[in-house]
Amino acid sequence: MTETTGYSGSGLVLVKNPHLDLMEEDVLYHLDLGTKTHNLPAMFGDIKHGMGIPSISIMLHELIKLLHHAKCRDVTIIRIGTSGGLGIEAGSVVITDTAVDSSFQPRFEQVVLDDVVVRSTELDKDLAEELLACSRDIPDFPTLIGHTMCTYDFYEGQGRLDGALCSFSSEKKLEYLRRAYEAGVRNIEMESTAFAALCGLCGLKAAVVCVALLDRLQGDQIRAPHEVLWEYQQRPQRLIAAFIRKRLGLPRTD
Amino acid sequence: MTETTGYSGSGLVLVKNPHLDLMEEDVLYHLDLGTKTHNLPAMFGDIKHGMGIPSISIMLHELIKLLHHAKCRDVTIIRIGTSGGLGIEAGSVVITDTAVDSSFQPRFEQVVLDDVVVRSTELDKDLAEELLACSRDIPDFPTLIGHTMCTYDFYEGQGRLDGALCSFSSEKKLEYLRRAYEAGVRNIEMESTAFAALCGLCGLKAAVVCVALLDRLQGDQIRAPHEVLWEYQQRPQRLIAAFIRKRLGLPRTD
Repeated sequence: MTETTGYSGSGLVLVKNPHLDLMEEDVLYHLDLGTKTHNLPAMFGDIKHGMGIPSISIMLHELIKLLHHAKCRDVTIIRIGTSGGLGIEAGSVVITDTAVDSSFQPRFEQVVLDDVVVRSTELDKDLAEELLACSRDIPDFPTLIGHTMCTYDFYEGQGRLDGALCSFSSEKKLEYLRRAYEAGVRNIEMESTAFAALCGLCGLKAAVVCVALLDRLQGDQIRAPHEVLWEYQQRPQRLIAAFIRKRLGLPRTD
Repeated sequence: MTETTGYSGSGLVLVKNPHLDLMEEDVLYHLDLGTKTHNLPAMFGDIKHGMGIPSISIMLHELIKLLHHAKCRDVTIIRIGTSGGLGIEAGSVVITDTAVDSSFQPRFEQVVLDDVVVRSTELDKDLAEELLACSRDIPDFPTLIGHTMCTYDFYEGQGRLDGALCSFSSEKKLEYLRRAYEAGVRNIEMESTAFAALCGLCGLKAAVVCVALLDRLQGDQIRAPHEVLWEYQQRPQRLIAAFIRKRLGLPRTD
């Protein structure tokens, strides 16, 4: 089986696993759903997951299988969330053009059994541009397109000085973050490479839209008041709401 | 008051103590927090830790800093949870002697800035033996000591055939799991290497105690009924309760 990006002409969500067809029932354990016990095409669930690649990976495997079993077509999937900004104003919204790893490379290394498989983390460029166009209708916060760096760790992996462990100097940290900025990184989070890789392989159009809660060139701790952070967190949702209204041909509200 | 399972329809965490409601203020003395002096729902109400190394790593950095700020001494920290078993009966409890990665090596690779640092994943052998000794007082489920394999991924990383992506055969999967078994692995989960590494570096005595929900040599999907899984999940807690009672010199109840 080749590791190419999948797209079926029918617009259905593809799962790239020949074993599924042979199973009498598929139980989506973490979602507590099964193809025999539930009428998946008729159902939706409110799901809450954790932080980081393992959590989003589990969620995506099961969500993508759910979309497949439910025979959904032409699916666009958008990750919204929070991030640390890099050389941008706190509260800015970053639409990711490319998700990169901690060496600023557009790749995701997936361990399969005991092999490492390198996967592309490309996202849909047209979708990113469409989202940027929508942002022009929301003038009260800045929105930009940039690379998003994805790490396995919030503290040492993101160059924070305030973890339980820290073995590097403030200068080393800033040198690293500046190199990231020069490589085109505008924000840092913990899910985007795995998200881009998995969505790409399964033929889903995907975007990542995250607000920056702080500028990491200015500090490590998130110190804005709760009300400010709360308002920041609404921004990606407001942008996506505008995008959905535009797609549906509804008038602007924002 | 009956000693039944607590579950409130709201999903809130139940405490089984009628006196709490009558107290004007509840001071959580050891945490230096109080229900009048602190707005606990605002401070902690949105906490939900996810699965995998990034989630446990974030939690540990902040928990270890809390223990440090609070000047706690001689701390023992035990991760309890669920896992997939390897060549052991479903419902068995595994006390980890060594956490290993997907190549069965006792190491955790931590990205620090853009370097990879290799860390030891050794756990406290005496603590593991002490826990095993406690298990002899709980005869209704098997407890054993073994290696625990920690992966970044639940599906491809653990050799499951039922993910949205699968590029290997059933034979390759079984060959991998059998090699893991031969290397001493008795269960598989997603946190232990990072947990062991971080606790070790910070001088905390640490143990990992997980129940196996299934035997991965028999299948991928967790199919036991909810009541059975629920009872399995109590087992590590029952073992740890026995351990705490023994340490405190209290009589056995189990």
